[in-house]
Amino acid sequence: MTDLAIPGLMDRRRALLGPNMSTFYDDPVHVVRGEGVWLWDAEGRKYLDCYNNVPHVGHCNPRVVQAICAQAAALNTHTRYLHAGILDYVERLTATFDDPLNTAILTCTGSEANDIALRMAEAMTGKRGIIATDATYHGNTTLVSHLSKSNVPAVGFGLGQYLRHVQAPDSYRIPDPDGQHFAAGVQAAIDDLERSGIGFAALIVCPLFLNEGFPTQAEGWLRPAAEAARRAGGLLICDEVQSGFGRCGSHFWAHQKQGVIPDVVTMGKPMGNGHPVAGLVTRADIMARFRTSFRYFNTFGGNPVSCAAAAAVLDELQEKDLQANAARIGRLAADRLQALAQKYPVIGDVRQSGMVFGAEFVLDRDSKTPAPAYADRVVNRLRQRGILLSKLGRHKNTLKIRPPMPFSTAHLDLLMTTLDQVLAETPVAP
Amino acid sequence: MTDLAIPGLMDRRRALLGPNMSTFYDDPVHVVRGEGVWLWDAEGRKYLDCYNNVPHVGHCNPRVVQAICAQAAALNTHTRYLHAGILDYVERLTATFDDPLNTAILTCTGSEANDIALRMAEAMTGKRGIIATDATYHGNTTLVSHLSKSNVPAVGFGLGQYLRHVQAPDSYRIPDPDGQHFAAGVQAAIDDLERSGIGFAALIVCPLFLNEGFPTQAEGWLRPAAEAARRAGGLLICDEVQSGFGRCGSHFWAHQKQGVIPDVVTMGKPMGNGHPVAGLVTRADIMARFRTSFRYFNTFGGNPVSCAAAAAVLDELQEKDLQANAARIGRLAADRLQALAQKYPVIGDVRQSGMVFGAEFVLDRDSKTPAPAYADRVVNRLRQRGILLSKLGRHKNTLKIRPPMPFSTAHLDLLMTTLDQVLAETPVAP
Repeated sequence: MTDLAIPGLMDRRRALLGPNMSTFYDDPVHVVRGEGVWLWDAEGRKYLDCYNNVPHVGHCNPRVVQAICAQAAALNTHTRYLHAGILDYVERLTATFDDPLNTAILTCTGSEANDIALRMAEAMTGKRGIIATDATYHGNTTLVSHLSKSNVPAVGFGLGQYLRHVQAPDSYRIPDPDGQHFAAGVQAAIDDLERSGIGFAALIVCPLFLNEGFPTQAEGWLRPAAEAARRAGGLLICDEVQSGFGRCGSHFWAHQKQGVIPDVVTMGKPMGNGHPVAGLVTRADIMARFRTSFRYFNTFGGNPVSCAAAAAVLDELQEKDLQANAARIGRLAADRLQALAQKYPVIGDVRQSGMVFGAEFVLDRDSKTPAPAYADRVVNRLRQRGILLSKLGRHKNTLKIRPPMPFSTAHLDLLMTTLDQVLAETPVAP
Repeated sequence: MTDLAIPGLMDRRRALLGPNMSTFYDDPVHVVRGEGVWLWDAEGRKYLDCYNNVPHVGHCNPRVVQAICAQAAALNTHTRYLHAGILDYVERLTATFDDPLNTAILTCTGSEANDIALRMAEAMTGKRGIIATDATYHGNTTLVSHLSKSNVPAVGFGLGQYLRHVQAPDSYRIPDPDGQHFAAGVQAAIDDLERSGIGFAALIVCPLFLNEGFPTQAEGWLRPAAEAARRAGGLLICDEVQSGFGRCGSHFWAHQKQGVIPDVVTMGKPMGNGHPVAGLVTRADIMARFRTSFRYFNTFGGNPVSCAAAAAVLDELQEKDLQANAARIGRLAADRLQALAQKYPVIGDVRQSGMVFGAEFVLDRDSKTPAPAYADRVVNRLRQRGILLSKLGRHKNTLKIRPPMPFSTAHLDLLMTTLDQVLAETPVAP
């Protein structure tokens, strides 16, 4: 069952797309079909997708596909003409937010949305200093790519001068039950920006700290950091590209779980179930300031097909009650992972927030020494057994399990049974 | 036949999307359906679309719609898995370029592509100075938005310091038959950047100078400016977001008409006929330098549905021979416009390059005083008569006629007959 096409595909990738283009897994997967929580490779092998958050309501969700087809066949144009699609969608979207978050810009990518959010912060404050965590990722434009410490670009028009990184939260190693320690880090970064003359414009965080390893946090944990940002006259930007649209289970947006009302919320990946649509929601005063500072127009942003895809995602989430499913499956997943932690000392910590869950691997529970190579072996062995997931976190040793939202107890059982087998077969020392 | 929904739609736009969101025409069009070169409004009124270049192979082109539907129903995922779609497409795309332009990055928007192209220039040169014309537009990211002089943002993280504008070419007012005058402007900007210590990284131009008013230029006109850029060690970036995919008639890419091989070519709008797909093509050495300086990844970029849409556009262009149609209709259009210029002294100049054509309005042929208000009146009156087009250019007085590529002689006849009537009825003094 070896896919003989793979070496050729890898060679073509290098030649056509350039070097240093990462693929998942030591043995990359050549995908050809998707349905619900399943992917199939070119040899007909079926994989349980426990990783992809973009196909939020399931790969090739029929309702979303039908919405795209119907609208693409009727009209696809831009927002310099009047069309009800974008208005109907933004009305529904902003209704999921607390007041006063009631205006939106639609873009094509989360990167574009974050790029605008940072300019909104500059427009509102007249300052340029941005604070992010030291284990985050917020996108790929010249400005936004500087926010990723793991990827501070060698070049980038000198914008790195405006960024300050704070230590990412880590509930397993850095006790911070009420978020005061994190807030103190934010305050120190604010002080540094003010001292340097750059000034403080915004704190940008994923409210689940998903790339950081989704630390365990009580509701309202982000409040002290948000208050520090506001006290200093800056904006709080919540990047909900990964955490939004019901994934955290308890709330539709993860910032609601965190007990804060951000100034700007950005979103993307799951918004159109893979159709390139993204955007941001903000207050009317921030929107007005931005729109009078820039003549922003995005040719594809908010086009009728994108809005139809995004509206179908909302329909599907509501009709299937997928947010409640995320809460329920997430709790069951945490229980199953805790049971595995009883059996396998390599599991140092179990973390879960709705339909995001994972286990942190350590060489030793006392020292909590991260075991990223072990995580790699587990991820690759799971892939060989038809289970797709990944790893992430401050120490790159945490399983990242973040399946499409229609993930069921049967799917969870298959995942956990296979994980149990893989852990049993994988020695901690290679 | 008044669309009573329009005031409500305008109010909802302001409330949901913010102020200062431009719409076309004094009396905005509420579109609901498109087919080929036609758009319909909510009252059932039909409009001849002489403006939109995004629906390149026609609104709701059945082949493109079918390709999107089929692929969206089969699989839509990202490039960290292997999939032949992006490789097959990039192979076909790069085959339309001259050597050594044989590698590509796919993005979602032309803005993202230009944002990368400028970073490639910085990565290759170690410098940051960018030169663009003073009447251009290259997109909406923080970095790229600074290139538009008409829209230099009040805020934008200080990136304006790296930009220098050169006077846009203007074949009607600034004699420059061989491009030497423009090249001298580029050289002066290079010298200024070098003197200031910023250094010169790239010259970025649309090879048709479309926003500038698509001046009449002999083949090879851009060569002297390109040579100045190369001599100074900088890159030539051709932004073919508007000019590419056969629109210029004589060539598939407008830089080929200009007799230059750029270092980077960016593209977008027509690439997926409205599906959000864009990208750039460059040399292997530039790609390698960029990919080792950045870990660039774009979640939606190059996904299987985007590639299917883009491949269907290439199929449609080839099968219907739409590049040849652009050349033929363009020539006929220029003849018809010249005939109108005989009748109406307000037409100071006629310009055309393939399926891009227009007339520049002046108050007086001797002084060549631009008549932008007249152009506005003509554009709005044509809209009332069911003909959609716009205006642009250095003086905002030039009709911008840039229809979908399947525009026929019958469509051209309807456009020109109506334009004749409108010019007859529209006094130069209001």
